[in-house]
Amino acid sequence: MIYFNSDYTAGAHPKVLERLLETNLEHTVGYGLDQYTAHAKALIRQEIGCAEAEVMFLVGGTQTNATAIDGILARHEGVLAAESGHIAVHESGAIEASGHKVLTLPHYDGKVRAEDVEHLITEFYADETYPHMVAPGMLYISQPTEYGTVYTLKELEAVSAVCHKHNIPLYIDGARMGYALAAEGADFTLRDIARVADVFYIGGTKLGTLFGEALVVTNRSLLKNLFPLVKQHGALLAKGRLLGVQFAAMFTDGLYYAIGRHAVEQALRIREAFRANGYEIVIESPTNQQFFRLPNEVIDRLRHEASFDYWGARGETHSIVRFVTSWSTTAEDVDILIELL
Amino acid sequence: MIYFNSDYTAGAHPKVLERLLETNLEHTVGYGLDQYTAHAKALIRQEIGCAEAEVMFLVGGTQTNATAIDGILARHEGVLAAESGHIAVHESGAIEASGHKVLTLPHYDGKVRAEDVEHLITEFYADETYPHMVAPGMLYISQPTEYGTVYTLKELEAVSAVCHKHNIPLYIDGARMGYALAAEGADFTLRDIARVADVFYIGGTKLGTLFGEALVVTNRSLLKNLFPLVKQHGALLAKGRLLGVQFAAMFTDGLYYAIGRHAVEQALRIREAFRANGYEIVIESPTNQQFFRLPNEVIDRLRHEASFDYWGARGETHSIVRFVTSWSTTAEDVDILIELL
Amino acid sequence: MIYFNSDYTAGAHPKVLERLLETNLEHTVGYGLDQYTAHAKALIRQEIGCAEAEVMFLVGGTQTNATAIDGILARHEGVLAAESGHIAVHESGAIEASGHKVLTLPHYDGKVRAEDVEHLITEFYADETYPHMVAPGMLYISQPTEYGTVYTLKELEAVSAVCHKHNIPLYIDGARMGYALAAEGADFTLRDIARVADVFYIGGTKLGTLFGEALVVTNRSLLKNLFPLVKQHGALLAKGRLLGVQFAAMFTDGLYYAIGRHAVEQALRIREAFRANGYEIVIESPTNQQFFRLPNEVIDRLRHEASFDYWGARGETHSIVRFVTSWSTTAEDVDILIELL
Amino acid sequence: MIYFNSDYTAGAHPKVLERLLETNLEHTVGYGLDQYTAHAKALIRQEIGCAEAEVMFLVGGTQTNATAIDGILARHEGVLAAESGHIAVHESGAIEASGHKVLTLPHYDGKVRAEDVEHLITEFYADETYPHMVAPGMLYISQPTEYGTVYTLKELEAVSAVCHKHNIPLYIDGARMGYALAAEGADFTLRDIARVADVFYIGGTKLGTLFGEALVVTNRSLLKNLFPLVKQHGALLAKGRLLGVQFAAMFTDGLYYAIGRHAVEQALRIREAFRANGYEIVIESPTNQQFFRLPNEVIDRLRHEASFDYWGARGETHSIVRFVTSWSTTAEDVDILIELL
Repeated sequence: MIYFNSDYTAGAHPKVLERLLETNLEHTVGYGLDQYTAHAKALIRQEIGCAEAEVMFLVGGTQTNATAIDGILARHEGVLAAESGHIAVHESGAIEASGHKVLTLPHYDGKVRAEDVEHLITEFYADETYPHMVAPGMLYISQPTEYGTVYTLKELEAVSAVCHKHNIPLYIDGARMGYALAAEGADFTLRDIARVADVFYIGGTKLGTLFGEALVVTNRSLLKNLFPLVKQHGALLAKGRLLGVQFAAMFTDGLYYAIGRHAVEQALRIREAFRANGYEIVIESPTNQQFFRLPNEVIDRLRHEASFDYWGARGETHSIVRFVTSWSTTAEDVDILIELL
Repeated sequence: MIYFNSDYTAGAHPKVLERLLETNLEHTVGYGLDQYTAHAKALIRQEIGCAEAEVMFLVGGTQTNATAIDGILARHEGVLAAESGHIAVHESGAIEASGHKVLTLPHYDGKVRAEDVEHLITEFYADETYPHMVAPGMLYISQPTEYGTVYTLKELEAVSAVCHKHNIPLYIDGARMGYALAAEGADFTLRDIARVADVFYIGGTKLGTLFGEALVVTNRSLLKNLFPLVKQHGALLAKGRLLGVQFAAMFTDGLYYAIGRHAVEQALRIREAFRANGYEIVIESPTNQQFFRLPNEVIDRLRHEASFDYWGARGETHSIVRFVTSWSTTAEDVDILIELL
Repeated sequence: MIYFNSDYTAGAHPKVLERLLETNLEHTVGYGLDQYTAHAKALIRQEIGCAEAEVMFLVGGTQTNATAIDGILARHEGVLAAESGHIAVHESGAIEASGHKVLTLPHYDGKVRAEDVEHLITEFYADETYPHMVAPGMLYISQPTEYGTVYTLKELEAVSAVCHKHNIPLYIDGARMGYALAAEGADFTLRDIARVADVFYIGGTKLGTLFGEALVVTNRSLLKNLFPLVKQHGALLAKGRLLGVQFAAMFTDGLYYAIGRHAVEQALRIREAFRANGYEIVIESPTNQQFFRLPNEVIDRLRHEASFDYWGARGETHSIVRFVTSWSTTAEDVDILIELL
Repeated sequence: MIYFNSDYTAGAHPKVLERLLETNLEHTVGYGLDQYTAHAKALIRQEIGCAEAEVMFLVGGTQTNATAIDGILARHEGVLAAESGHIAVHESGAIEASGHKVLTLPHYDGKVRAEDVEHLITEFYADETYPHMVAPGMLYISQPTEYGTVYTLKELEAVSAVCHKHNIPLYIDGARMGYALAAEGADFTLRDIARVADVFYIGGTKLGTLFGEALVVTNRSLLKNLFPLVKQHGALLAKGRLLGVQFAAMFTDGLYYAIGRHAVEQALRIREAFRANGYEIVIESPTNQQFFRLPNEVIDRLRHEASFDYWGARGETHSIVRFVTSWSTTAEDVDILIELL
């Protein structure tokens, strides 16, 4: 069986695991106050070109989003997000559980548009009853999006500009950031992300760590008391150095980028093979997630030898499926898949 | 340097790590729906003698407490706990953040007494203004306590009885449960814990996993929708099988118990060595945490070769220190410490 | 100046105020435990034909909605509501502040359709990822709606049936219930409301009390600890008897119904006068709120002698306005308005 | 029967009610945006000598405390209060429901001491584990206290100084402020309160309005978005002018002060009569609440003709009772009571 279900179905990249092994018997202080974590933070600060950024490692994505958003918003504010956004759909109400409304925007293959953000904010303050409504307090986007699409640098700068014009922070969910950086046609770097965003996170779980997300605060007027906030959200790992060790491995010798490039390369091979076989590409994704509309009998046939995600019927005879690659996807796996088509 | 600061300063027990390595390249579904997690759940159900128990693996202790307590309590209820309890002191307000008051009880070396629970509940309902006050909705205890002390089976049965008499659930925080099971004089088993408690957790982090806590619900009328609740609390691990793999290792060939016994054995050697040297034992702890009152110059001297926790001054010339053992504490480490005294 | 801005711009109906005056110097216990409150509860129970219903008086509508919804929902659940619903738009995030998502449904002049409720719930459970999403935990509707429209008995029975089929409670916001009961063509009574809903409230503020809403729980398995929940939500009035006195006045000699009938009668006179003058009726409202699309110069002209609400531009030359009647609207006021057209 | 149970057992002071009557048929905008409310705010600003203060009227005390505290605290902070404080005991967990811990201080007849505040804060930051604990984010005191006692100006200045030294705001609950201002030996004015506090409220409910509390923010860096916060807490009254009308009446011709003086005068007559008859004064209260320890047979005898609150047994033969006066207590009522002794 070959696996394309998701980028979190296998364990950790061997180089990450190796470092966990090498350091396993060492004793360090807990809660991320150790030297491995300090080293990983320094590597990330260097990578993003922002020596003053606060970096904090958390365990998972929902946790990171909930903690950051809860810490940024005032009580009467909500967070803007695409109606397809992870926080709007797939976090079991974690944002609302900490007291905040998700104010949804239309999405275009997962992306929001600066003009829609502008429109929502302008309309909000034009409505005389606005003090009775939830104020737009920040913007959440993800890079890449739920559908594997990627904001161009110009688009990022546009949403950033509209946020800052209206004095609300921009937060970028980078659960799969490495795949956006390696995307076909990507025209931005982590330094750009750090420049346009006020707060963002660089995901580890889906890029090759066992777990872990690096929350980065470049606008230091925000999230001033991150440590107790993280603890309060149950997101503080006792053996915090495990996060430091893993992220240090990821940002040593460009591993993080190499993983992204490898996965995207394999994903594009898959996309082109489906295209070449005449199947419909549902979304033109330049990253490691690919969405196809296939005849149900093709799906049934493929399933005997490949594992992938079913996303629902589309018409009576066809369905949407998702194929995802990661560090653990080998070129041979993709060869086999292509052969099957 | 020899380390006695805590039981979470090193990585994972080699056998646990070995299993993570062996399974690293396998692909499984996420979020704990895999076969490793199913196997670990089955092992725990067998261990506690309760085939119907719900078992759910979470990442950390604060998270587990916050999730379970939030799920058990009605909105108008609070949780009873010793004033020294972890949830009352050291969780950055995680319980209050989900909307609930911690109603504190006096503690006796970390333990609460059944009669104090009875008294608090009786007094509460005797006060005519009680509907204006936070109702006692459950009891939280930890086994062992923050001070390393252990409830006897009789004491557990007493607090359980008073809870059930008043129709409130008993929740046991077992972050260090394995050390209580191995405690000097321990007269209870995991089956007893499962019998007296409605909900409890078996801690992995402090016993030798990289991370992870096994939440067990024996009273199935409680926490009926655990999965979305765990997700909402940001406590659902994407690569959930990592928890299953680790807990399966812990409950195979009695590893969990062996680790507890080893650590307690070394802790008692330390305690007796301090006693033999005439130092004051602050709390008669039968588990892996030991508290001594030492002259400051002794502390300064020991610090050159041993690492341990400072708990504050006690008088002008003495201070309290804590020594903790774990799976990673070797008999040789303890030999060296004893030599130093 | 004649006033049609809203139904809460004047004080209380003279008969209500009279009773407050008559009882002003009496001493009673606080918090609604007095005999006036008991009497008002009895009157309401009789009116709805449900001797076992729990009745609790709160001060305002947002408060009542937030308290009831918070008490009904489990932590992982959200409340379904029309996207135009008061809780979805105009309560400053009060529902989210208590931890719950508002799951929106399309609306048809403010009403939701049973088939849309059915669809949302069915789609939810058909989605394999549903445990990662907010579960539909109850349905909120208002009778009449934000747009003055009214559910027919058949429509109420349909939404009730779909709720109960899926085992979620139906909650009806009756801030303006009296106007729905008196609506042109209304085919339901308070007994029907009590029968189809699990929980609902009968609004006082907009019908002629100084303030106050009567929350009614007919499904007694819900909201079992209402008193402390109300207190916790800051919704418990110290001089609780003021609520009892006012609601007793409202449900004595049919005052509540008479007020509704009077206001609706005047509202329909206004509607027909606008229609007769060739103006566009935006929504065919059978209750005390009327919405017209008027040329801007007409609006400007009317404003010199009448006060009403502006709801926004509709095209370059026209705008939407709202005219509302209440107990304080006299037939003479309406005569003057009609004269002005 | 003569009544001494509490200061909220009767309706409103006749002059307050008169103004409600006089204005009943007027039409004004809702939500406190009317001219009566503006006038009342101006009167209060003048009274406290602070033209820039924000004033906002809410309905009740628990609501006001919960709203203000929720708006002031950061997520990781808690509120310091006497262990006897209203927010710590009698608000059904309203503070915790909005996510914050109440950190309790010892009390001395209801008052906290500046040195205890200093000590708690100093100890907190001296504890290395403090980032795992709830940070002291503000101080709550009430003037007068739950026990009717009053802080002297010197004591107020001392708690204010320690708060500002540590950069946390001081919030004063003035549910019964008028009785403290009129207290025997009172050496402070509302201007002093406004000077020492960052935020406080002047209670109406217990001083003679039907309901209503005036929240005053003198430190304008706090509570910047009060309107939506009040709405979110369900504390925004639709017919907001009712609050304005009542508070304007209270601060016209010194009514607020006169009510306080009258009630305190009668309370001290009661206290001295009990003292003269040899009964034990439990707390030397200089305000309108008086606490006595009486033989049970005396209590039983008095109860035939007077109504007062029972606060619990004290020994086998005696109990504590509370007598409270208000604007509605007449000198004749007190004459009758004194006669009964």
